Amino acid sequence: MKIGIVGGTGDIGEGMALRLSPKYDVIVGSRDEIKAVATCDICRETLQVQGMECSLSGVTNQRVVDEADVIVLAIPFKHAAPTLNTLTGFEGKIVVSPINPIERTNYFYYAPPPEGSAAMMVKGMLPESATVCAAFNNIAANKWKVLDEELDYSVAVCCDDDAAKQQVMEIVNNVSSLRAYDAGPLAAASVVESVTPLLLNIARFGKMRDAGVKFV
Amino acid sequence: MKIGIVGGTGDIGEGMALRLSPKYDVIVGSRDEIKAVATCDICRETLQVQGMECSLSGVTNQRVVDEADVIVLAIPFKHAAPTLNTLTGFEGKIVVSPINPIERTNYFYYAPPPEGSAAMMVKGMLPESATVCAAFNNIAANKWKVLDEELDYSVAVCCDDDAAKQQVMEIVNNVSSLRAYDAGPLAAASVVESVTPLLLNIARFGKMRDAGVKFV
Repeated sequence: MKIGIVGGTGDIGEGMALRLSPKYDVIVGSRDEIKAVATCDICRETLQVQGMECSLSGVTNQRVVDEADVIVLAIPFKHAAPTLNTLTGFEGKIVVSPINPIERTNYFYYAPPPEGSAAMMVKGMLPESATVCAAFNNIAANKWKVLDEELDYSVAVCCDDDAAKQQVMEIVNNVSSLRAYDAGPLAAASVVESVTPLLLNIARFGKMRDAGVKFV
Repeated sequence: MKIGIVGGTGDIGEGMALRLSPKYDVIVGSRDEIKAVATCDICRETLQVQGMECSLSGVTNQRVVDEADVIVLAIPFKHAAPTLNTLTGFEGKIVVSPINPIERTNYFYYAPPPEGSAAMMVKGMLPESATVCAAFNNIAANKWKVLDEELDYSVAVCCDDDAAKQQVMEIVNNVSSLRAYDAGPLAAASVVESVTPLLLNIARFGKMRDAGVKFV
C-alpha cells in the first residue's frame, strides 16, 4: 500500500512523512515538486540520524493522487477547496481528511462550511467512488515532527465504508502510540474536527505548549 | 459555600450529589420536593455504607436557586428552557451548565440552539448579574453514580468571569480524580459540549459501555 501526502511540505505533512515512511511507501506532494523533493531529503536525513530506514519520494500533488492508494490531505482548511479544484483522478481512492475548519477571535472556535464539516465538504468535491475518512484531526503539528517523542493520543476515525475505515484505523495504530477509535460515519466528523479548537483553547488558556486528547 | 443541584433527582444530579456532598454543603432540588428528599435519603445511605459523612438536603428547585451559592443545572437540554422559565432569583449566583444539546439518528450529533451552545442559551435566560460556567459536560451519567470507581477524567471549564471560573475549577478538582482545564470564555462552550456526542459515538461504534476524555 502506498500512502500519499497532498500538501506534504507543510508542518503536519512533513511530520506525517517522518512518522509514516519507516513503515509504508510514502510519496510527498507539493504544488512545487522541488519543494517536495527537498522535504523528503530533510526527512530522510532526520530518520537516518535515528538509524531508521524509510521509503519516501517527493512529487507533485497530482502525482500523489495518481499513484497513492491512500491520500492524506495535509492542507489547511482555507486551501482545501482551491487545492482539490486543481486535482483529478480520485476515483477509487481512500482520501484521509485531517482538516479542521477553525477560526479565532480571543479564543478558537469551530467554523464549519455549509456541508457541516471539512470532511463532508471534501466528500462533496470528490467523485462518488472516492472514500473519504476523517482521521488525525486532533494532533498538534509540532508533535508530529518531534520523532523521539511518542504520540500517545487517541485518534477518532469517521468513514462511511467499513473496509476503508479499518484500513485507515490500521495505519493510525501503526504510528507511534496512536490508538484509533471508530467514531461513526463521515457525517459525524464535525464533532471530531471541533475537538481541535477545544485543544487549542485549553493550551492557550492553560499556558501549555499544546494539548492532545485521549478517550478513556 | 453551598452547592445546589437543580434537577438533582435525575441520573447525573444524583451522582453529583453523591460525589459532592461529602465535601460541600449540597442541596438537591426537584420540581417535587418529596422526590428530592427521597434522592437525598438514597444518597445518604449509599455514602454511609462507604463510611462517608455528607451534608445533603432535598428541597424544591426554587429553594435551590434561593439558597445555593453555586447552582448546577443537572437537567437534559430539552428541559432546560422550560425549567429556567419557572425559576427566579439567579441574581449574583454562579450557575454551572453541564448541559449538552445532542440529537441522534444512526449516530449522535451536536444540535446547539440558535445561541450557539446550551451554555450561551442559559446565559441569555438569566439576569446579567448571574455568572454562567460550562463544566462537567463530558462525564457519563452512570460514571457519576459508581462511587467506588475513580472519575479519572479531564473537565473543560468555560466562563467569562475569572473568579467564578476559579471557584468552579476548584470544585471540579475536589471531585474524585477529575482535573479542571480552563477552556476559555463561555462563548467557547460549544466545542466542549460537542465532545459529548463524540464520546457517545466512540462508545457506540467501539461497543464500549461509555467513554470519557482526558487532555494530555
